Amino acid sequence: MSGTSFFSDMVQSITDRGRRLLASSRSEEAAVRPGMEALCEMLLSSRGEASGMAIAAEILQRWSEMDEKGELSFLSMLYRAFGPEEIKLDKAIDDYRSGKSAAAITNLHKASEPRRQELLRRLNLAPNGTGALVKMRERLLASRDSSEELKAVDADFAHLFSSWFNRGFLTLRPIDWSTAAHILEKIIRYEAVHEIGSWDELRRRLAPQDRRCFAFFHPSLTDEPLVFVEVALTRSIPNEIDEVLDEHRVSINAEDATTAVFYSISNCQDGLRGISFGNFLIKQVVEDLRRDFPGLRNFVTLSPVPGFAAWLHKARASGSALSQSEREALVTLDDPLWFTDEAKAAKLQATLMPVAARFFLAERTSAGRPVDPVARFHLGNGARLERLNFLGDRSAKAMRQAHGLMVNYLYRLEDIEANHEALAQRGEVAASDAVEALGRREVGATAGGQLRRIAPKLNQRHKENNL
Amino acid sequence: MSGTSFFSDMVQSITDRGRRLLASSRSEEAAVRPGMEALCEMLLSSRGEASGMAIAAEILQRWSEMDEKGELSFLSMLYRAFGPEEIKLDKAIDDYRSGKSAAAITNLHKASEPRRQELLRRLNLAPNGTGALVKMRERLLASRDSSEELKAVDADFAHLFSSWFNRGFLTLRPIDWSTAAHILEKIIRYEAVHEIGSWDELRRRLAPQDRRCFAFFHPSLTDEPLVFVEVALTRSIPNEIDEVLDEHRVSINAEDATTAVFYSISNCQDGLRGISFGNFLIKQVVEDLRRDFPGLRNFVTLSPVPGFAAWLHKARASGSALSQSEREALVTLDDPLWFTDEAKAAKLQATLMPVAARFFLAERTSAGRPVDPVARFHLGNGARLERLNFLGDRSAKAMRQAHGLMVNYLYRLEDIEANHEALAQRGEVAASDAVEALGRREVGATAGGQLRRIAPKLNQRHKENNL
Amino acid sequence: MSGTSFFSDMVQSITDRGRRLLASSRSEEAAVRPGMEALCEMLLSSRGEASGMAIAAEILQRWSEMDEKGELSFLSMLYRAFGPEEIKLDKAIDDYRSGKSAAAITNLHKASEPRRQELLRRLNLAPNGTGALVKMRERLLASRDSSEELKAVDADFAHLFSSWFNRGFLTLRPIDWSTAAHILEKIIRYEAVHEIGSWDELRRRLAPQDRRCFAFFHPSLTDEPLVFVEVALTRSIPNEIDEVLDEHRVSINAEDATTAVFYSISNCQDGLRGISFGNFLIKQVVEDLRRDFPGLRNFVTLSPVPGFAAWLHKARASGSALSQSEREALVTLDDPLWFTDEAKAAKLQATLMPVAARFFLAERTSAGRPVDPVARFHLGNGARLERLNFLGDRSAKAMRQAHGLMVNYLYRLEDIEANHEALAQRGEVAASDAVEALGRREVGATAGGQLRRIAPKLNQRHKENNL
Amino acid sequence: MSGTSFFSDMVQSITDRGRRLLASSRSEEAAVRPGMEALCEMLLSSRGEASGMAIAAEILQRWSEMDEKGELSFLSMLYRAFGPEEIKLDKAIDDYRSGKSAAAITNLHKASEPRRQELLRRLNLAPNGTGALVKMRERLLASRDSSEELKAVDADFAHLFSSWFNRGFLTLRPIDWSTAAHILEKIIRYEAVHEIGSWDELRRRLAPQDRRCFAFFHPSLTDEPLVFVEVALTRSIPNEIDEVLDEHRVSINAEDATTAVFYSISNCQDGLRGISFGNFLIKQVVEDLRRDFPGLRNFVTLSPVPGFAAWLHKARASGSALSQSEREALVTLDDPLWFTDEAKAAKLQATLMPVAARFFLAERTSAGRPVDPVARFHLGNGARLERLNFLGDRSAKAMRQAHGLMVNYLYRLEDIEANHEALAQRGEVAASDAVEALGRREVGATAGGQLRRIAPKLNQRHKENNL
Repeated sequence: MSGTSFFSDMVQSITDRGRRLLASSRSEEAAVRPGMEALCEMLLSSRGEASGMAIAAEILQRWSEMDEKGELSFLSMLYRAFGPEEIKLDKAIDDYRSGKSAAAITNLHKASEPRRQELLRRLNLAPNGTGALVKMRERLLASRDSSEELKAVDADFAHLFSSWFNRGFLTLRPIDWSTAAHILEKIIRYEAVHEIGSWDELRRRLAPQDRRCFAFFHPSLTDEPLVFVEVALTRSIPNEIDEVLDEHRVSINAEDATTAVFYSISNCQDGLRGISFGNFLIKQVVEDLRRDFPGLRNFVTLSPVPGFAAWLHKARASGSALSQSEREALVTLDDPLWFTDEAKAAKLQATLMPVAARFFLAERTSAGRPVDPVARFHLGNGARLERLNFLGDRSAKAMRQAHGLMVNYLYRLEDIEANHEALAQRGEVAASDAVEALGRREVGATAGGQLRRIAPKLNQRHKENNL
Repeated sequence: MSGTSFFSDMVQSITDRGRRLLASSRSEEAAVRPGMEALCEMLLSSRGEASGMAIAAEILQRWSEMDEKGELSFLSMLYRAFGPEEIKLDKAIDDYRSGKSAAAITNLHKASEPRRQELLRRLNLAPNGTGALVKMRERLLASRDSSEELKAVDADFAHLFSSWFNRGFLTLRPIDWSTAAHILEKIIRYEAVHEIGSWDELRRRLAPQDRRCFAFFHPSLTDEPLVFVEVALTRSIPNEIDEVLDEHRVSINAEDATTAVFYSISNCQDGLRGISFGNFLIKQVVEDLRRDFPGLRNFVTLSPVPGFAAWLHKARASGSALSQSEREALVTLDDPLWFTDEAKAAKLQATLMPVAARFFLAERTSAGRPVDPVARFHLGNGARLERLNFLGDRSAKAMRQAHGLMVNYLYRLEDIEANHEALAQRGEVAASDAVEALGRREVGATAGGQLRRIAPKLNQRHKENNL
Repeated sequence: MSGTSFFSDMVQSITDRGRRLLASSRSEEAAVRPGMEALCEMLLSSRGEASGMAIAAEILQRWSEMDEKGELSFLSMLYRAFGPEEIKLDKAIDDYRSGKSAAAITNLHKASEPRRQELLRRLNLAPNGTGALVKMRERLLASRDSSEELKAVDADFAHLFSSWFNRGFLTLRPIDWSTAAHILEKIIRYEAVHEIGSWDELRRRLAPQDRRCFAFFHPSLTDEPLVFVEVALTRSIPNEIDEVLDEHRVSINAEDATTAVFYSISNCQDGLRGISFGNFLIKQVVEDLRRDFPGLRNFVTLSPVPGFAAWLHKARASGSALSQSEREALVTLDDPLWFTDEAKAAKLQATLMPVAARFFLAERTSAGRPVDPVARFHLGNGARLERLNFLGDRSAKAMRQAHGLMVNYLYRLEDIEANHEALAQRGEVAASDAVEALGRREVGATAGGQLRRIAPKLNQRHKENNL
Repeated sequence: MSGTSFFSDMVQSITDRGRRLLASSRSEEAAVRPGMEALCEMLLSSRGEASGMAIAAEILQRWSEMDEKGELSFLSMLYRAFGPEEIKLDKAIDDYRSGKSAAAITNLHKASEPRRQELLRRLNLAPNGTGALVKMRERLLASRDSSEELKAVDADFAHLFSSWFNRGFLTLRPIDWSTAAHILEKIIRYEAVHEIGSWDELRRRLAPQDRRCFAFFHPSLTDEPLVFVEVALTRSIPNEIDEVLDEHRVSINAEDATTAVFYSISNCQDGLRGISFGNFLIKQVVEDLRRDFPGLRNFVTLSPVPGFAAWLHKARASGSALSQSEREALVTLDDPLWFTDEAKAAKLQATLMPVAARFFLAERTSAGRPVDPVARFHLGNGARLERLNFLGDRSAKAMRQAHGLMVNYLYRLEDIEANHEALAQRGEVAASDAVEALGRREVGATAGGQLRRIAPKLNQRHKENNL
């Protein structure tokens, strides 16, 4: 938006000057053109106050032209050259220890802040700086785990981003069929749960009056959704995804809906990993839908269970999670086409569903949290596990990851906080009576009300990714 | 913006629960209704993840209802109860001293961060949270200097605000006669240099094609300008403010202008004191005007000198800044109506102007900076002192603060960085040859080219404030 | 909006060519520069298809530079030179009379259309053409009644405007304190009923939550309101204007209002006189307010009676409208300060109110319509005369025009059509039982329930104009 | 947009009343529910003033539910029952003939106006009335030519629409990749020249910086383009469509373009047939592009010649348009794959191109206009025939309609008016020297500079429609 001529002129003037200034004091090479480290120092110096935007733009421009090696070297340099100033820090520690005054604490915090934090803030002065920094962290994350130093650099990015992308700065915008095409193509690209194969399919998810979609945006990342959720307005809680996505379904009058189904939530920006928006998004959308459609009584998800098959695989091989008779019944799963045989499926269901219920209710990671990542997200947000849906998704991916299992999580306003606390404090998963009963069912008991007739169908959907 | 029912319902549920939870573990009083400190702890706890917006809204709501005593007590509580956790901090220091690993530094920085920083970030979750926090700091600033503790609390506000109000997050918007009235009334209210007495006067500053106004806005402070600048497009550099504000002047064709005059810059939000936007504003406006009006060659200010009279008063009383003959000539100033007597004024000018030139060029504060605050701002931004204007402003305020003196600062793109550096590194003020010459003039020398005929006029403008 | 260079270049080329073309066939004078008539012919010719915008812009430009004499001469020329083509028309009449075929009727209508109608449509091609034509008619109306020819020209303007300004093309926009200042200053300027004395007064009418304002706009008259209505949301039907405009009143919660009071309706564009929007405006605003505030039960006006005093003056002088005892009682009116004397006022009220009721219920113009113009408007729209308010407006204007009388007209959805028909078909005025009773009251009867205590007050408001 | 409850309530009240009113005076059937004719009469009556929107909405609602027979019967009724009032018309004619006063002419015009014109204006009061009326005319056009009566009804629609859709009321809006999807899907649907096969293809025409698209919109047909043009910014005048639409082409910097190529113009609304916008669109786009890209020097089309093959077919069969040797050479055309044989194609070119040049320069319809409809449009707009492009479009449609011929029309500001006049007055087609020379070329002459090497290619594009 803002003219580049001013900045490029100024960068020219700066780099001309920089050349001379640096020539006297540093290497010959810098005399030709200030290096990235020198530019970063310049940006942090008092000179940065006068021409910060220009220097920041220059640094980000050069970054964008770097190859992979250059990028890594730049990121390492951020660690090496832009940590806290050790002498100051040591002095601040001494002052603090000799008397914990208010000023001493303030100084200690200031002295322990790596200089790259201020550097990043100043890089943000450049036009489109925020977006460039998000991309920079995307790069950083790809290498982070290989190096303690990069982890430290990432901690600074994460610290800043969690401040900058505070929910208070985000705006919720509806995404519909009157949204700009260049944003819609990003929805197609970023959809991570149930792939959108074409613009026609996108239209089916956005245009009907009983479909809604909402996204969070940040004012400095224009036209870049951060996270979005797709919602179906229905008259009952759906138990399979095909019901929601069926291209021949007849849409209902939005005013007649009783239930809002969150059937897909996707994060869009890899560079913002770990900065949580999804929980705010769901709650805000619940709020907005309640206001617009007073007839809505249920707010539920229709969610995948991407961690189920892997866990079951391990449980079948070892451990005490399964009884002998269960182990035997689950052999059916080894037939890849089991779900196309109605009798086999019905028999398996009687065993699989109680096991699945226990998977949610009783199994925990070593850190004491639910095993399934999607469950961690929704239960952690205060939702309740409402229903398990046998063969809720027959796509290849869902069969592979979850033996076709889908679940509904229910968001009830008045329970959100209690549910959250029960999980956080006592590790208890909130669940409906039906799920609780299923979790207590004796092996081999006759399948009860929760079970429904499953007409065998072949896979209709093939590619999907989990949350 | 979004419905309050959800939040108020949730707050009700939280406070009901909180009552019970807190009742068991704390005071009887808390059993009735959780206190502010308890709410703040709740907001920081894991519970805050589930219902942060609701708790934050409740805290800010209560804050807005407090009396002065309550406010101070809340701010002190922020110091007392939400500093860093001492035990963790001590451990982090030990770890750091025992080996300065990347992780140890990261941890030290984290441990030294007062808990109130995260608290403030979470308060920002509330609807209109950002605005409420800016107001909270406004309150804090009013008491800050009386207490080391409040200074520490303010350091945390300032730290967060300088991150949140980073120029990269601000948008520049033109203010003109098609701007919404509720924003324009804020322009009237916030104008700090040359008061806007009525809507008609506002119209004269915004509607003509040779007048422009621009403001920075932050996306989370909707319709609240942060800082704005008023610009006159002219065919020469003006030497008195009446020329700019004359209500009978004939406006020129904007395309014919050669000069953009920044004649008023006002900060709007007391709670953002010390977070600098003005320098970015001027440079961005220069950039935008250059693009829209290629005929513009000069970018200058017409600025007050609010520190001049006070300095001169001291200099006349003592010190070596003035020669004996100067002292004698300046006695004229003791006649409050001197400027209405043409002969007196002309005589005084010959002495006053060289003294004023030296005031800018040679005088410094104990910290080595220019004495006048407006001069510090513009010279620090890299502008050059271009011209001194004798009796540039005859308003009562300007006569009192500056004996009527106004000055022009010139922004020349190619010199901004060098000027800034010369001042920052060597304490040198950039000035035009004419001002330099004036600064060297012998006492008693005949006033030269810089002087102009001054027709005595009575005060036309009465109330003005400086930058 | 769209660049003028293209058009001015083209006009140059056209007029150059026109000069040559016209030189051969017409007067020497035209050789210098085509006259307005020649330009209009050009615009209507096939040439107009190629460069209509340019020629139209040129004609309107010249029009805008004309003095009064030139304007009148141009308007007369529209009559003289741009009526229907007589030969064609005579032939079309002959064809029609010799057999009333579908085609013959179509041709007759076409042939009888004055050529200036197409000319006006083509003038509308010019940038801002619509606004220029509205101004042109404003000029025309000022002279219309003096000439049959100008009446004919005006009939064509009126015909076109009633098509162009069809309510289907208008948009209703709320006017509030966030509206652009350049639109608000037009509200101040156009307010015709209760003058808006300052921006502060405007703010009091727009900013409180129990005040609303709506205007119709036409897409081609950007930022120019056509008609606007000011509304007060109240808890009862007000009986005096000071109650509504009181600057110290406390605003109520908009949701608590039961009554919407239309207390001022102003037409803005003189050039659109006779093109009725007001009735659509009121009904649309009723509709929108009903949707936004389900608690509203009454939709009433608080209206002036600008025709009352003049009628009463005549009736007192002669005629049978008043009884002898009424005539005697009304002598009090000759004391200009009667309303400041409580006893006098109370006594007068007993006579004046029944007379006023009969003024509305029984008196008619020679065309059989209600005498008062505001009554004609609201009763014609299907409203009911609800209440007469003695001393509802003590401003000098209202005392002069209506002896202080104001009235409430009530809009009841279910009666609008019947009321309208009763008036249109049978000349019956719809009125409340109370007004009907008042109209039947015997002279000298004791004033009943309709009367209220009037505390004498001096004029608070001075300048107002009627609808 | 505006609430339906108000209107439906009102319609209920109207039809209730209507039932009673009509029952007494008309048929038993009407007593049940007023028929369409009765509703239309009601809309025109004084009652229409009170509740016009409601009645209009009811009529259009019923229209939308009619079957084909009902529609035709309604349209015939418009003729039969809503022509001019004969008695009034006869009287107006008599008055006119007895003295052609200004008033008599005005009255004659008024009396000859079919009552359905006012009826249509009142139907436009309904929400979305304009769009409904455009659809109604679409229906009317489908049957118009079968009946003189429907032709008369259509004349009234056309008369109103040419007033309502005056260019002065249209707005030009760019269509690009940030346009709303629901508008873009209309671009795909309405594209009539070079079909857009997919959203990817649409993206290639809108997103690159050297591609532009503009459409006219009317304020009352929200989000419905009336006509749009697709533009390529290039460095030379293209001679085949594949060059423009090539999906692998590399886009150029828009600032570097010298030439704007209008390669597709499509009308969108069948119901607006005969209301010309295309010429205004092109001129406005030329204007806007000139302003945004001062480097543009040429404004040309790349156009199909849909009338060429049909004409040539007739000319080969009979007539004097071709010489014997030409006839012989053109036999090659009977081989449907001639264009895949380089030698054949080159030989044919030498004959075909001069013939094509004469087709444009010399051939005329019986009305004296160019034979090709696209040529009529552009030459009538004042463009010049700049170049003939042999095998400019090898799509099946173009081969069938034009033997692959495409042409460039050049829009030169300074010649538009003269070109238009030469054609309108003297029937002369403006053409470049090269085309003129080609038109004069002797049969059998060697193909000259205009010819270019054609590498045989197979059809790449298959479906296209002409303007």
